[in-house]
Amino acid sequence: MTSGNTQSIGLVWPSASARSRLRPLGSAQVDITGGFWADWLRRNRERTIPYGFEQLRRAGNLDNLRAAGGQGGDYRAASDTGGLTFAFVDSDVYKWLEAVGWELGRTSDTGYDDSKLRTAADEAIGLIAAAQRPDGYINTYVQLRRGGEPYGDLQWGHEFYCAGHLIQAAVAWHRALGDDRLLAIATRAADHIDRTFGPNGKSGVDGHPVVEMALVELARVTGEDRYLTLAAHLLDRRGHGLLGSGRFGSGYWQDHATVREASTVAGHVVRQLYLDSGAVDVAVETGDDALLASVVRRWHDLTRTRTYLTGGMGSRHLDEAFGDPFELPPDRAYAETCAAIAGVMLAWRLLLATGEPKYADAVERAMYNGVLAGISLTGDQFSYVNPLQRRTHRAPEPHADGGRAPWFPCACCPPNLMRTLSSWPQYLATADGAGVQLHQYADSTVRAEVAGGPVELAIRTEYPWDGRVIIHIGQTPDQPWALTLRIPSWCRSASLSDPDGNREVPAGESQVTIERQWTAGDTAVLELDLLVRVTEPDPRVDAVRGCVAVERGPLVYCVESADLPPAVELEDLRWDPARLPVPGKRADLGAVVGVTVPALHREATVDATLTVDAVPYYAWGNRDAGGMRVWLPRAR
Amino acid sequence: MTSGNTQSIGLVWPSASARSRLRPLGSAQVDITGGFWADWLRRNRERTIPYGFEQLRRAGNLDNLRAAGGQGGDYRAASDTGGLTFAFVDSDVYKWLEAVGWELGRTSDTGYDDSKLRTAADEAIGLIAAAQRPDGYINTYVQLRRGGEPYGDLQWGHEFYCAGHLIQAAVAWHRALGDDRLLAIATRAADHIDRTFGPNGKSGVDGHPVVEMALVELARVTGEDRYLTLAAHLLDRRGHGLLGSGRFGSGYWQDHATVREASTVAGHVVRQLYLDSGAVDVAVETGDDALLASVVRRWHDLTRTRTYLTGGMGSRHLDEAFGDPFELPPDRAYAETCAAIAGVMLAWRLLLATGEPKYADAVERAMYNGVLAGISLTGDQFSYVNPLQRRTHRAPEPHADGGRAPWFPCACCPPNLMRTLSSWPQYLATADGAGVQLHQYADSTVRAEVAGGPVELAIRTEYPWDGRVIIHIGQTPDQPWALTLRIPSWCRSASLSDPDGNREVPAGESQVTIERQWTAGDTAVLELDLLVRVTEPDPRVDAVRGCVAVERGPLVYCVESADLPPAVELEDLRWDPARLPVPGKRADLGAVVGVTVPALHREATVDATLTVDAVPYYAWGNRDAGGMRVWLPRAR
Repeated sequence: MTSGNTQSIGLVWPSASARSRLRPLGSAQVDITGGFWADWLRRNRERTIPYGFEQLRRAGNLDNLRAAGGQGGDYRAASDTGGLTFAFVDSDVYKWLEAVGWELGRTSDTGYDDSKLRTAADEAIGLIAAAQRPDGYINTYVQLRRGGEPYGDLQWGHEFYCAGHLIQAAVAWHRALGDDRLLAIATRAADHIDRTFGPNGKSGVDGHPVVEMALVELARVTGEDRYLTLAAHLLDRRGHGLLGSGRFGSGYWQDHATVREASTVAGHVVRQLYLDSGAVDVAVETGDDALLASVVRRWHDLTRTRTYLTGGMGSRHLDEAFGDPFELPPDRAYAETCAAIAGVMLAWRLLLATGEPKYADAVERAMYNGVLAGISLTGDQFSYVNPLQRRTHRAPEPHADGGRAPWFPCACCPPNLMRTLSSWPQYLATADGAGVQLHQYADSTVRAEVAGGPVELAIRTEYPWDGRVIIHIGQTPDQPWALTLRIPSWCRSASLSDPDGNREVPAGESQVTIERQWTAGDTAVLELDLLVRVTEPDPRVDAVRGCVAVERGPLVYCVESADLPPAVELEDLRWDPARLPVPGKRADLGAVVGVTVPALHREATVDATLTVDAVPYYAWGNRDAGGMRVWLPRAR
Repeated sequence: MTSGNTQSIGLVWPSASARSRLRPLGSAQVDITGGFWADWLRRNRERTIPYGFEQLRRAGNLDNLRAAGGQGGDYRAASDTGGLTFAFVDSDVYKWLEAVGWELGRTSDTGYDDSKLRTAADEAIGLIAAAQRPDGYINTYVQLRRGGEPYGDLQWGHEFYCAGHLIQAAVAWHRALGDDRLLAIATRAADHIDRTFGPNGKSGVDGHPVVEMALVELARVTGEDRYLTLAAHLLDRRGHGLLGSGRFGSGYWQDHATVREASTVAGHVVRQLYLDSGAVDVAVETGDDALLASVVRRWHDLTRTRTYLTGGMGSRHLDEAFGDPFELPPDRAYAETCAAIAGVMLAWRLLLATGEPKYADAVERAMYNGVLAGISLTGDQFSYVNPLQRRTHRAPEPHADGGRAPWFPCACCPPNLMRTLSSWPQYLATADGAGVQLHQYADSTVRAEVAGGPVELAIRTEYPWDGRVIIHIGQTPDQPWALTLRIPSWCRSASLSDPDGNREVPAGESQVTIERQWTAGDTAVLELDLLVRVTEPDPRVDAVRGCVAVERGPLVYCVESADLPPAVELEDLRWDPARLPVPGKRADLGAVVGVTVPALHREATVDATLTVDAVPYYAWGNRDAGGMRVWLPRAR
């Protein structure tokens, strides 16, 4: 790369010279105007983000910054976690600030008074500024608990990790708001790492990646190539045993093989996906096709062998790790909320780099299922793990069954959800010189620049409940341009109508492109079939052999105890292959379309037929602490 | 109880007044003379136990004692476990000493020169004696790392736990060898706990039970009722929140409910089973039927909902816990070796207390499968976890797939195996006034005292490879007495011949009793059918739906990659229900009877029929690091 892009206002913003197939749109270019996502985003702004600040205050994250800034007090973290002290809690504040940055930068006016949010953010930024040392270093755990001696525990200390999240927050505030208070702090923090561990410095990498992708964005924002160089250097140093084998083996932190050579994903899921996100960022900026190819290879392995139907990833609680190929237990799925989010981040980068719609498919599956399940319908209860099954009768251990909690001692997931929802409009569409690409369907307005000039689209849809997407052409240049629409991989038939007429989308197409001279007032209508689908698992997934799942559109469905007659236990249900599931409205969980599932239930000595309401997976666990199943055993 | 029993020479030795249905035999009353178990016991004595001492030396366990005794040096434990320090490593030495005690007390002469073993044990006992403080306290972690301040961390400190294992070793040396060096030490250590936490002392229980059962045995050995009182007191204090919720919830250490009230097993498996073993010991000594009933209730829940086919228990790696009812994943089975051993210890106590053969069934299933799998056929490689499935292709994380290792940073399992094998002869038979009960079948000599006088039996069998058990009556009194033989629950038909003739054992009998006037030279022959059985899982076990397992006699079988043709991958095999499995000799794993399993394998587009050799589960993982399955998917 050669220079910073002062026009950058988006989430991931490849430089002009990057080898990136698609160009993102900035936070001011896409407005969500109604429907499914408007509800989620409103709740995020009005409930979740303000609530997050209260929790950060209560948990001591702000006090840590205050103490590091010289106002007294000891490090406070996770006092109730049985002797474990978490060193990385600064990052929760940074992720929350990133969310606020994107949120305040969204132009859609919901009528919500955000002055309190601004005040809260100002307080946090002020505390961060005061906590930063004159040499640029900032990490409250090290400053308060390790005598201020940096980088003494790269394995577990999360110092680069915290700096990475600080940089991401700073980038958001710069791009979304033009506010560079955090950028000044983050740049000096990055410089401290660069001076110490840059190409001519000490050899060392962090046990938890994230700084790599953050540094690339910092390079993009500042135009300073050395941050990109540092990111590439840290990637190259990985896989040479600098971290050792720790408690869980060197694969846990992806130090068992170099980033270029590792053929499969390994170890801790979020670590792997953040690392690979950084690798894509470096690859597109440096034109390093081999590096990009290594990520693509791992991504295919990941989606083929280690991804849940919900887009969740991570089968092991012990080390929050992927596990073996096809080791995908529904009950003990870890599927950390942050892992689904990291999957979205990685897939988005691969979509920009390659333009291939399969990556947008992955973003969709993860967002509608694995990510949204991480937050309650009230916006203030979170799940850390997201299993695909919870038994009606459970062990008394009060953890790890996917139950929601108001906050966590290790609170990485809630602010990660906040920043993901705040930036979600940016995932809907991209542009290139030739036209506009719609990747996700939402009631929204999209503004983009194509070769001939500005384009504005008004998109009307009740997706994901309804498969009709109406695209009104508002502004258009006087030259032909191409409107590209993704056909989701789950869709078995789709049709298109535009000023040139109606037509079926050929089976197997992953996108359709309409290239023509558009006129303001033109309309294109995409109709995606939303038949309920009965999904068989890959036969190598031992844990769900003999079961089926129900999907409709992008949504995975599940059956909850809450929807069963009192005499019927979830574990006694069997899927009845002789009947078909059908959709049906239900009002108790918002404007949700449910699915009625055909089932059998053994009563006395005969199988009684039964129909059971299934609800979207993202909505599970909002009514009681009962059982839940995505995969239902099939009757013989 | 009223007095110590100076005749006690067995593993668990209820006092004369105890409410115990059966009386154990001492270590000098049962000799294993040949066959299956003679091989295992010889290897334990000649290879495993001496090897264990080398490992304790290498790992620093002896150095810790040396340092605590004032010879200098810091606490050494688990330096390679990523920052975790294990506080309980003294217990490894104690368990090893317990093994040596039982072993040296075994009367069968294998021709092995045990002088080195005696020297090693003397060294260890000397170090323990020197490390003990004048006030009786001994715990090298606390002495070296916590400034000598005892009981500062009852949750995780394992101080009572270490004392419990010290007492168990002392009891073994007292009973098997009449050597009371350890008993003097252990008594003073117990007194320190009693002074501090006895009925009039501070309130506190240990995060890891074991001291309860040890104290009951100490009471039996010394005749001091206050150790029994202390054990009962510690049991009663549990379930009142003294331990808090820690990292994994209060159920983890069985503090979520009182021992009397808890309806199901919960939390950490070994903790629960050691606790319940202590509860049985207290219950029989105090005549507390309600306490015994609570353990029996939990035991039934445990065997019905949370026990693997192998007798293993524990479905969760994170907290080494039982998990939910019917949560029994084969691949991520934790099934810690120590848990299977603890299951044997508990079932043995329940057998003595009640006389019900189902508990001997449980001992058999666990010993032949879950326990023996924990040690290699060479006797010097151990497994900590014992899954029922290992995939051919696995994550690069070098742990937790059941692979064997020479030792562990947390080395609880290897010496637990050693002491279990050393004391195994004591599990074979019991006596009561009316006669002798044979619970386990092995080529052996059994001496017992019945009402009329001494009995000696010579038992000849190739069990478990052959179902014929010949019992020669050697010595017998001139009065009738009853010989009781267990009919294993897996056995579908059995027959019996004795001086009174031949007969079938009625179906469904769990034992047969021959009460008659025996004459020296009489013979009784039990024939147990050893048909290969094809086992269907409980339909509530989601993780193995649609699969079957193969068993023969007490042995669970498994298929290993090592026995497959090169072109066939384990994960592509399907059980062929159209053909029958048959047994067949194989010489490569000792005198093992294998089972030939009918399978299908997809080649090009057709299913090829195939027969595959299955090996006993205990023998798995001795040839390569390939895949293994107990449960095979059934072809449609």
